[in-house]
Amino acid sequence: KSDVTCGTMPDLWQDAMDHAVTLARKAGEIVKDALQNDLKIMCKSSSVDLVTKTDQNVEQLIITSVKEKFPEHSFIGEESVAAGEPCVLTENPTWIVDPVDGTTNFVHGYPFVAISIGFAVNKMLEFGVVYSCIEDKMYTARKEKGAFCNGQPLQVSDQKEINQSIIATEFGSNRDPDAVDKIFSSMRKILCLPVHGIRGVGSAAINMCLVASGCVEAYYEIGIHCWDVAAAAVIVSEAGGVLMDVEGGPMDLMSRRVLAANNNIIGERIVKEIEAFSAVRDDAPVILIK
Amino acid sequence: KSDVTCGTMPDLWQDAMDHAVTLARKAGEIVKDALQNDLKIMCKSSSVDLVTKTDQNVEQLIITSVKEKFPEHSFIGEESVAAGEPCVLTENPTWIVDPVDGTTNFVHGYPFVAISIGFAVNKMLEFGVVYSCIEDKMYTARKEKGAFCNGQPLQVSDQKEINQSIIATEFGSNRDPDAVDKIFSSMRKILCLPVHGIRGVGSAAINMCLVASGCVEAYYEIGIHCWDVAAAAVIVSEAGGVLMDVEGGPMDLMSRRVLAANNNIIGERIVKEIEAFSAVRDDAPVILIK
Repeated sequence: KSDVTCGTMPDLWQDAMDHAVTLARKAGEIVKDALQNDLKIMCKSSSVDLVTKTDQNVEQLIITSVKEKFPEHSFIGEESVAAGEPCVLTENPTWIVDPVDGTTNFVHGYPFVAISIGFAVNKMLEFGVVYSCIEDKMYTARKEKGAFCNGQPLQVSDQKEINQSIIATEFGSNRDPDAVDKIFSSMRKILCLPVHGIRGVGSAAINMCLVASGCVEAYYEIGIHCWDVAAAAVIVSEAGGVLMDVEGGPMDLMSRRVLAANNNIIGERIVKEIEAFSAVRDDAPVILIK
Repeated sequence: KSDVTCGTMPDLWQDAMDHAVTLARKAGEIVKDALQNDLKIMCKSSSVDLVTKTDQNVEQLIITSVKEKFPEHSFIGEESVAAGEPCVLTENPTWIVDPVDGTTNFVHGYPFVAISIGFAVNKMLEFGVVYSCIEDKMYTARKEKGAFCNGQPLQVSDQKEINQSIIATEFGSNRDPDAVDKIFSSMRKILCLPVHGIRGVGSAAINMCLVASGCVEAYYEIGIHCWDVAAAAVIVSEAGGVLMDVEGGPMDLMSRRVLAANNNIIGERIVKEIEAFSAVRDDAPVILIK
């Protein structure tokens, strides 16, 4: 038998992953160009239109290129879903894309904006690419092949003491009083465990990459979407971290809730403090009025 | 009359400012070296000792060099005050130094750590240098000469609408329940004005430089020290921003309270929402037990 048929299984999806890295870098250039040129010359009040335009441009670039190279693949993207496309994960190879993660940051030129490209087959995530374009950090992870930032291997923190930890989370964009109550109450309980600190850069994908990098021990949030976290979930996992629901148990990609931690001890400890609430699922049926 | 005696006043303190930039860069190398070499090889629980050692090394480097070059100048530094030196600002030319701003970040390798060097004469700030060493951003400002980041001029945001703004603040290290109550209550009121978001990178000096850069509209905090904010106060002011107390009125460098904003409209609007409290002043008399 020859090595070709009997050796290591060829990596089915390496082609797709290489293409994702190329697309993320190309998308990053578009985002940086919009920030450096257009944002500077317009008044801040128009910047919301700029982010929408950039979001759509980047998503179109990625969709067009993926459809050309992998015509049989499926696609879930923030802007496509906003335009009425279904948000349902099937067994088919599926690209899950956030063209601009950290849109509020983008609007303000706050330097954490990412392009997030996840890829799932048979409803299992196979690889993730997160490009934090202003920092020029390319985070990549392929299932069972490790996680990297600009080619350097990533490893989560080895911390097991919650009171020696930094936790990342966000206030989010939900201003419903009940949700805000729970968000603040959870943060306060965690702060007073005590922990070393609470941080948040304003991008779910980058917060999760900071867990993977060992800079923070955990990140949790309710209200995120599958495209915000699909890619980074692979990166956390391949850096040795864990993913779970904010009430414990397995993470559900479509549930709008995520907890990423360096290990189960820290993850489970935070679960005890989080006052969870539900968000409308990403894959909820859309009821159209007749 | 010759140009020499009758032309522009020579800039008395430019020499000192140039020296501050050199020292900040040298200090940044020590901090980065400690992060990249020592922090990686030690267990996280010893990292508190490393930050203390690095803090002391950097402050000693700066003191020694300043005393040699400007023997008649005074010095206020975090580590010197911790060691029992007085923290009183006189009319004498005074260097106000935080060798490592963002010590919690340092301990975790969270990428916002700054060397902060402010300089006051006759109790007026003359220049400020903040070196965010992991990002390699050198922020500088000289009174009436503008503010710069790596040589590029800085300008605060022109935003006047609070509900289009991002506000920076920190949970801080105070875990006293009354203080924590007020910190959370203020944040919640500001979040629900509403604002676009609340951020905080974990370093007072860098948060203020983000105000100067126009990425956030304002930053406030109670519990900071004069060495955290002296340098960045000049940078905010020279970028067109304003400084005030968290209850309005002029900022008092020794009061442990700061509010930096892009303009008075945003600053005064936030003042209305902050539940202020007092911290022991930096220049409080030290009562020794007999």
